[in-house]
This record gives sequence, structure tokens and C-alpha cells, in this order.
Amino acid sequence: MLENDLILRAARGEEVERTPVWMMRQAGRILPEYREVRSRLSGFKELVETPELAAEVTIQPVDLLGVDAAIIFSDILVIPQAMGCPYEMVENRGPWFEHTVRSNADLNTLKVANPYEDLSFVLEAIKITKTRLNGRVPLIGFAGAPWTLFAYMSEGSGSKTFSVARKLLYTSPDFAHKLLDMITDSTIAYLKAQVEAGADMLQIFDSWAGILPPDQYEKFSLKYIRKICEAVNEVPLTVFAKGAFFARHLMADLPCRTIGLDWNMDIAESRKLIGDDKTLQGNLDPCLLYADQETIRRKTIEMLKAFGPSKHIANLGHGVYPDTDPESVKVFIDTVKNYRHT
Amino acid sequence: MLENDLILRAARGEEVERTPVWMMRQAGRILPEYREVRSRLSGFKELVETPELAAEVTIQPVDLLGVDAAIIFSDILVIPQAMGCPYEMVENRGPWFEHTVRSNADLNTLKVANPYEDLSFVLEAIKITKTRLNGRVPLIGFAGAPWTLFAYMSEGSGSKTFSVARKLLYTSPDFAHKLLDMITDSTIAYLKAQVEAGADMLQIFDSWAGILPPDQYEKFSLKYIRKICEAVNEVPLTVFAKGAFFARHLMADLPCRTIGLDWNMDIAESRKLIGDDKTLQGNLDPCLLYADQETIRRKTIEMLKAFGPSKHIANLGHGVYPDTDPESVKVFIDTVKNYRHT
Repeated sequence: MLENDLILRAARGEEVERTPVWMMRQAGRILPEYREVRSRLSGFKELVETPELAAEVTIQPVDLLGVDAAIIFSDILVIPQAMGCPYEMVENRGPWFEHTVRSNADLNTLKVANPYEDLSFVLEAIKITKTRLNGRVPLIGFAGAPWTLFAYMSEGSGSKTFSVARKLLYTSPDFAHKLLDMITDSTIAYLKAQVEAGADMLQIFDSWAGILPPDQYEKFSLKYIRKICEAVNEVPLTVFAKGAFFARHLMADLPCRTIGLDWNMDIAESRKLIGDDKTLQGNLDPCLLYADQETIRRKTIEMLKAFGPSKHIANLGHGVYPDTDPESVKVFIDTVKNYRHT
Repeated sequence: MLENDLILRAARGEEVERTPVWMMRQAGRILPEYREVRSRLSGFKELVETPELAAEVTIQPVDLLGVDAAIIFSDILVIPQAMGCPYEMVENRGPWFEHTVRSNADLNTLKVANPYEDLSFVLEAIKITKTRLNGRVPLIGFAGAPWTLFAYMSEGSGSKTFSVARKLLYTSPDFAHKLLDMITDSTIAYLKAQVEAGADMLQIFDSWAGILPPDQYEKFSLKYIRKICEAVNEVPLTVFAKGAFFARHLMADLPCRTIGLDWNMDIAESRKLIGDDKTLQGNLDPCLLYADQETIRRKTIEMLKAFGPSKHIANLGHGVYPDTDPESVKVFIDTVKNYRHT
């Protein structure tokens, strides 16, 4: 039993006493306590792959910031790795893949991930976290959307345009669908295993949604997100498709409970496009947390009023930025927690 | 007198025999003839600052690709430099500024640019180009939008989040408005000088429009674009605010003739939001040019039909990517030029 299940009730569209709140990237980055753990290790991936420590930094924001949910400390790129496409996380540069996946021949080097064999470190971290949380707040599991993982695996690194990945959608659509299918199957198994290990809620991050033309977004991304939503229905699921302003009307039909909004998506317009059934998550500008406390309070309350008293999970419209003052984060969190809709 | 003034007539909303076409970044990058000129020089900036050669690469796409307009080969960052904030263009990395502008004290090191003194190389390049074009097609001049230049000058380089620049809008709005005012005054003088030197049309590039929340976009970007549009009304002006999907309804009232669209903005929806008076420019996915010729033709015609027979200037929804095959570019250009609306 959970002591605080506000976020699950909000996701299911039920009445809540107050709006629940958490932050994307809350585990890590901003907390000195996180940086202390991180400094003892060789790098980001060692932290991801060490269940005891991943659990520790997952719980830190619950203890230190008072958020209404924990999100497992991990990385969306564990799936490519589990499929046979390993990567390095290069300090200040981002991910880098030794082998890219750009053709049917490259597919022969890959397999559908088996989470119990290839991703046991994540499942173990979830179990430890659940034990240590001891029912205080729900734990969110997550995965990258197939298109976003496809983009990294084919491009081989981050990119301003992802033009290598996007080129493949035009030149090799059959290959693209095959790889997307493998990623989707891997992700479904992975998310189901996360739920089995204890995840109370799930989120899919489509970080590179915004760079596709609308027709390609439907065919090469939304189709696979839909497959995942259909297959994984044990717990409430959130889809956060960054930059996919053009696809909001299509999100209305997605078999998931919650849609995440960017900080530059208008709340009323998004509600109209996505419809009244879904819960919405977001969408404070992460840069607002650089402002003075009064401005943070004022804009947070403006946001809460715009979303209304139910079917809203308060969050930023993007991951919290590394140099954000934890005190400012607390002002945001506490403002949400103290606010009552009248 | 111009032999081909299709683009000017389309911009003014007049009837045209066919849709005019050009491409953002058409001067440079993709043409072997450009790379030949570039290889003789120390770098990108030397080309920008050498009027004879800037004129040469400006005219290349008119000769080689048959576009309906030339756009002067230059860089949006010549304005920061002319204001006293010089930059280097680092190969494969992008721009880098030795001094950033982040406080009122930093403003004392800057001045409003005098285009005749500080940017004479651009004016000279325009004059040479006009002479050599000899009326074949119109010449487009351009500048960066004040917000986009502010972002580079304060951040000091490109960035995924521009969180330093965006932070300043929250922490130092008065400073931000002062710098934006200086950039705006510099840009107005610069664009007027471009027209005087021979530019037949102008475009403002707000490359980082899409990262602002809507309320900040109005206050810190659109306000200054409007000032420029009001002050510079000698020739038709195009505003291309990349990623500003949330501001399209506000573009309807902007005192300019043409609005540029991204490749992921729906054409019918954009027309509805922007209204019937404006001409629209765009918006083929630049990655479509990686597809086979038949697909390029088919999607180009789809786009032409969606925009309709008037008030449209065909273009990509972003600058053409460097590794695009010039033959594919020609297929796009020729498809537009051969198409007749029935």
C-alpha cells in the first residue's frame, strides 16, 4: 500500500486533494548529494549499472525535495545496449555509439532485448528502491520511444538535425520499420519487467519527436508508441513527445493515461487538442527556476490555475537544468503542494 | 528592371504564372563550385568578409540550380561583431564568442552598429552581386532576429538549451531589453543599408524562436521583430521564426509580407492561424531531398497543392543540408518551376 498515491489517482483522472508534483531529471544533476555519489564513480554509466547506487540517487529527491513520486535513475539508451548496440556517455558531449545501425545487414548484429538477462541491473535497482521507499511514494519506470532510440542508434550520437537518422526514413523505410519493431518488442518486454519489479507508473520519452514531419511522425513514431501503450496496460502510462506540437490532436486517441507537455505548448490549446479524458503533465519552463522566488511562486500558481484541479501532474516542460539552485526547486515543489484550487 | 520578379509579386500577394522557388542556405554548402571557392580561403568568415567572393557564391545557385532569387552570402552574426562582440566560426562546432554580453556593464563595451563603417563588406557584396545578376532575379538581404542574436551574444556559442541566455530573461529583463534595443537599432540601420545597396527583398531569421515560452516570445522577440518590420518597409520582408508554432496566430498582425514555415508545421492549419493576407514560405522537409527523385517530385507537388496558386514562395522548411545531392535539389526546383496549378 502507498502512503501517497496522489500521482496515480491524478493519472487515472480521479479527484485529488491537491495536484501531485515531480520533476523530469529530478534524480541527479542538481543535488550536491547526487554529485557526491557520482564523484566516487568512473562515470554516468557505472551509476546506471550499479543497482544499490541507482536506488540511492533515485530516492534522494523524495527525501530532499519532497516530490510525490520517484523515477528510477537510469538511461533511455540501456535498450540499444541490451539489443547489442553499446554506447559510451562522453562527458559534456553526450552519447556515442561505436557501431551504428543503418542497414538490414546491421540488424543481424542485434537481438530483441531480454530484460531479465540484459537489463537485470535496472530491475534490481527498482526492487531495492521499492523496498527502501517502503510505500512512501510511487516509483516511475521509463523507456525511450522507439523513434528516439532509432535516431541515436542510426545517427551514432546526438545531433542538431539527426539528418542521418531522418534520411533513412526516406531511403530505407523497410529497414527502419524492422529496427523500430525490434526496439518496440524490446521496450514492451522491458517495461513489463519494470512493472513486475515494482514500477507503479511508466513514462515514454520521445525526445526527438519534434524533428519529424507530421506524416512521418505518425508512421515512424506514434505507431510504435501506440503498440507499447496497447501491450503495457498494467499501470498508468505517460507519453512525453518533446516538440510534437503538431501531433497533439492524435494523442487524444493514444491508449495511455497521461500526455506530457513542453513549456512552450499553450495549456488551454493543448487541453482542447488532446481532449478532456487524458491527464496532462507539465509544463513549467525549466528556466523559470532561475528567477527569484516570488516569480517562481507566481508563475507556478498561474500554471496550476490554467491546468485546473484534476487530471494534472505538475512538472517542468523539460528536465531540470543542472545548474538550478535546489532551493528554487523547493519553492516550485512547495508552491504546488501548498496550493488548493478554490 | 527585373527579368524575373515572380518572388516579389508572390510576396506582395499578386497573381503569378507559377510558384517561385529558392532555398535557405542555397548559397554554399551543397555545391562543388562553392567548396572550390571556400577551399582557397582560411575559413568561413574570410568568405563572408570578401565581397568579390561572397558575390560569386551568391550567384552560383542562380546559374547552377535555376532558383528564382539569390540570397546574399553572409552570416547573421555580422551584427554582433559590428556592435563590438566579435566571434570565431569553429569548424564543425559553430560560432564561439570571446566575450559574452550578460550585464549592463558589458553593454558599455558595445555600440549600435553603423552599417556603412562596420558592415561595408556586406553592402559591397550586395552591389557587386546586383551588377553581376544584371536583373536576372531579385536579391534577398537578411539579418538575424534580435532574440536569436541576443541568444548567441549572451550564451557565447551555440547550445542545446541556451539556458544562460534564457536565464537572463528571468533574472535581468531590463538588461535584456536594453541589449535587444541596441541589436534592433543596429539591425534596422543594417537592413535599410542593404536595401539602399540593392536588396530587393529581406528576410529575418529567428533561429531560436522555438525555445521560448509563448509569453516571453511575445515580449522578448516578437516585439523587436515588429519594430524592425515597422521601420523597414521599403521592400517585402519575410519573417522565419523557427519552431515558433505557438506564435503563428500572432504573425497575422506582423507588418511584414511573408511568414516562413518549418517542415513540421501543417500548411492548412498555418494558413488558418496566420490568415489569408500573408504570403507563406516553405516548407518541404530538407531530408526529403535524400529520397529518390520520384518521391521528391510527388511530395513537392503535394506541397504546392496544399499551399495553392498564390501567396506562396516554395522553399524548404530549413536550410538545405550540406550532404544533399545537387541533382536532387534540381529535381525539387524543376518540379516547382514546371508545375501549373489547374
